[in-house]
Amino acid sequence: MPEIIDGSVESVPGFSAVGVSCGIKRENQPDLGLLLCDVPCAAAGVFTTNRVQAAPIYYCKKVLTSNADRIRAIVVNSGNANACTGQRGESDASEVAAKAESLFILEERTALVISTGIIGVPLPVEKILAGLSKAKDRLRAKPEPSAKVGDSFSRAIMTTDTVEKRLALRFDLGGIPVTLGAAAKGSGMVHPNLATMLGFITTDASVTPQVLAGALRWVSESTFNMLSVDGDRSPSDSVFLLASGTSGAATIDSTESAEYAAFRNALLLACETLARKIVADGEGATRLVEIRVVGGQNPESAERVARSIANSPLVKTALHGADPNWGRIICAAGYSGVPVEPDRIDIYFGKLKAAAGGVFTGVAQEALARELQKKELTLTVDLNQGSAECVFWTCDFSYDYVRINALYHT
Amino acid sequence: MPEIIDGSVESVPGFSAVGVSCGIKRENQPDLGLLLCDVPCAAAGVFTTNRVQAAPIYYCKKVLTSNADRIRAIVVNSGNANACTGQRGESDASEVAAKAESLFILEERTALVISTGIIGVPLPVEKILAGLSKAKDRLRAKPEPSAKVGDSFSRAIMTTDTVEKRLALRFDLGGIPVTLGAAAKGSGMVHPNLATMLGFITTDASVTPQVLAGALRWVSESTFNMLSVDGDRSPSDSVFLLASGTSGAATIDSTESAEYAAFRNALLLACETLARKIVADGEGATRLVEIRVVGGQNPESAERVARSIANSPLVKTALHGADPNWGRIICAAGYSGVPVEPDRIDIYFGKLKAAAGGVFTGVAQEALARELQKKELTLTVDLNQGSAECVFWTCDFSYDYVRINALYHT
Repeated sequence: MPEIIDGSVESVPGFSAVGVSCGIKRENQPDLGLLLCDVPCAAAGVFTTNRVQAAPIYYCKKVLTSNADRIRAIVVNSGNANACTGQRGESDASEVAAKAESLFILEERTALVISTGIIGVPLPVEKILAGLSKAKDRLRAKPEPSAKVGDSFSRAIMTTDTVEKRLALRFDLGGIPVTLGAAAKGSGMVHPNLATMLGFITTDASVTPQVLAGALRWVSESTFNMLSVDGDRSPSDSVFLLASGTSGAATIDSTESAEYAAFRNALLLACETLARKIVADGEGATRLVEIRVVGGQNPESAERVARSIANSPLVKTALHGADPNWGRIICAAGYSGVPVEPDRIDIYFGKLKAAAGGVFTGVAQEALARELQKKELTLTVDLNQGSAECVFWTCDFSYDYVRINALYHT
Repeated sequence: MPEIIDGSVESVPGFSAVGVSCGIKRENQPDLGLLLCDVPCAAAGVFTTNRVQAAPIYYCKKVLTSNADRIRAIVVNSGNANACTGQRGESDASEVAAKAESLFILEERTALVISTGIIGVPLPVEKILAGLSKAKDRLRAKPEPSAKVGDSFSRAIMTTDTVEKRLALRFDLGGIPVTLGAAAKGSGMVHPNLATMLGFITTDASVTPQVLAGALRWVSESTFNMLSVDGDRSPSDSVFLLASGTSGAATIDSTESAEYAAFRNALLLACETLARKIVADGEGATRLVEIRVVGGQNPESAERVARSIANSPLVKTALHGADPNWGRIICAAGYSGVPVEPDRIDIYFGKLKAAAGGVFTGVAQEALARELQKKELTLTVDLNQGSAECVFWTCDFSYDYVRINALYHT
């Protein structure tokens, strides 16, 4: 089993990371992060399915098409999403990447870039270029290139996040110790005009780019794609995974091996932990809710029901008020588009059964209310139509969500 | 052109309506409405598409299958939705209908029933039966059976509504003056555990049941189905239309005549007016927003884009904050599932163009902010992909929405 340790993307030997302030955000807040590896990495990325995609995503997809076996760096800025900026956006992204490559003497097109923040405003490229030099100085000031510079990277990628989201894992691959580091951001999906879910994962396991991409896609499907703060999807949502191969463990080049299973499990644990941290820190959230839809006819229908419940403002406001309002839950299942049978649905808050066959069980309201007061709540919906399941994470909807998103400019 | 007059469902000669308090709600609030016609009416209904449907909807659908040419009454209660109440729900609905039929000496199965309010709690049938007797006394106390008893009907159907929603229209059919009356309720879709959009429309036009059903379906598609307060759909949503035929105008039995066109236009005006009133009174709403999606490839895609924008919490909170956040709007269009082309999208607040080809136009923020301060705002999104259009109504998302829906029990 992987062991969770206090760490981040730079906990993996050979990786270094730093965050600095380059002046995109006000008051010298950190807004530029740099992740660097001593050696070329196998790299994979998963990106938003929104038809509106930020310029850096176009750029990264191109770079990964040809150079997924030799990525050395990722540059990430907050405060400006470089989205809806027309033709100019992609050349700005390219210029930032080229600067990182020249500063750190990397092969051409081996740096990735990603941006999060306001939409529709051109990227302040000069500030970022100057910021990259500052980041280099900060890294150089340390005795070793891979020295830890604290949590500045995970702080620099925050927008409305209130806490850093990072962890590291240690596990074995064929008897060789391996490390995996991870950092993420994401609170509301969109703020001030657009923010984002971003994830960065590093490891010294050796994995071929193709297998790495498959593992990241598979894990994202059941973690980052199964969370919702407000149902909005940003044009910048991205998760990156870099594998340096320096651990000495044998290269994973197929999905059939025990080593692949061990690696994917560690990746799953890291991503699930980050996903839960993101939802728990959802804009204005006071409560993390795990929705378990069971008894579905197939995985897709279980997911549609879970997503419909997770995105219902009426369910989310009830959860905020600790109101055991199973009626709203059954109702959201009813309009999910899945042919649910209302008179077969059972609903549980924690272990308490509130509805059986679509009808109230008579369980004491006080007991339900106590369950709902918890900071972390499991809500189980049994469709009793089959054996497919889905786990989905969401949070409650509070006054603060409205405040954060309505009154940013005031 | 139809003339809008101050009125309601009982403004049509031959119809009477009354609202009383029967004790479902606290503090003698009106919670039972009765609509009665002196003669048998052609009747039509449109109902929620939620898989969870309240018991009265099952009951009404059955009655309308056989008796759509002779409906005499509709009983509506608020405070209890008679939904998710198991086998018992439908027999309770049937008992209420039977009581109305016996009290007013109507043919069997010519009374419809509908309920709105809390879900999962059995209908307090005894209270409603006693309330019906009270309603009869109230009607009898008036000099004539069709005498006006004020707005008590439209008050009795309110839940979280803050204002009554009603109107009447006068228009001509083949030179004969005809009246159409209408009342509706609907604020949040679900409150306290479930509330609802309900509409009641009366007329003394003569229309065959089949033509009446077609007209109501067509009009509902572009009015009640094109509004969203919070995206939640209730298991009780229903609109009823009764046509008594007593005006003396010729019977409309085909959709080809000029009279049909005139009738449908009047119905459309009534339903659109009610739809706007419902959205303007959305839970916590401070602003009515008309979303016009134009330039769509087909009507379905225009509607999907409009619905995605109307239901985005991030768009709705921005509208609350009077923030001209076109980025969130383009982003919601991007995840609508429609293959929009972001770099062709133009966005207007009122007549001000904020984005052209997916990029900010540079229009003065102050001018935009002034436009957004208005109580009624038109938001136009031009997809520039074709000529299909959709008009959709929504409202902003405020602190009060959260308060109303989170803290009902406290």
